[in-house]
Amino acid sequence: MPTPSGHTRAILTSKITGTSVYNAAGDKLGHVEDVVLDKLSNNIMFAVLSFGGFLGMGEKFHALPWSTLDYSDDKDGYVVPYDKETLKAAPVYDKDQLTQDDGSVRAAAFDYYKAEPYWQ
Amino acid sequence: MPTPSGHTRAILTSKITGTSVYNAAGDKLGHVEDVVLDKLSNNIMFAVLSFGGFLGMGEKFHALPWSTLDYSDDKDGYVVPYDKETLKAAPVYDKDQLTQDDGSVRAAAFDYYKAEPYWQ
Repeated sequence: MPTPSGHTRAILTSKITGTSVYNAAGDKLGHVEDVVLDKLSNNIMFAVLSFGGFLGMGEKFHALPWSTLDYSDDKDGYVVPYDKETLKAAPVYDKDQLTQDDGSVRAAAFDYYKAEPYWQ
Repeated sequence: MPTPSGHTRAILTSKITGTSVYNAAGDKLGHVEDVVLDKLSNNIMFAVLSFGGFLGMGEKFHALPWSTLDYSDDKDGYVVPYDKETLKAAPVYDKDQLTQDDGSVRAAAFDYYKAEPYWQ
């Protein structure tokens, strides 16, 4: 779960996108490309991470539940608690696919990363 | 509450920002400038709307609960159910203030626009 930097729990999405993402070992994986919101509830559906360089995947994106991103002041970026192998084996999507199939990307992401579904 | 355009409930925030915003009377008010997320829960805190031109407020922003924005395919924009007077009298903020005071902008927005708080 992203923790506050400074004294506030509020963050502009424009400040989230572009932020670097690291794994627990400290390797830089890529950056936050976008955030997908749920039109029908007040929820963040998932964060869209670009790990293209690190995992050699070109224009494929990872969908990670918001709660799996931990902000580190030290690294000035988000840390995700997964190793390279776990991320390599994770479901990835073209940008269009991220919002195409109603609920299926969300379901796959929360299942794969073992996050508690917000919709249950 | 934003309704699906097409068949999906998922939307990229990069597609939300810049989208036009209208009032119930069909007047164009401005656009969505940004979206503020809650770092400590899975929630969308509020949408940041820029009504500068319409209300003559310069660089002041309105904070509106996500549920008050209804997407209209017709208008290709969001419609908010408030008249000009209601919006003129609403709390407005500098960009910095939007994320500065922990919870106070959120509280003021959900109170003023009579949205059900997600945190209770």
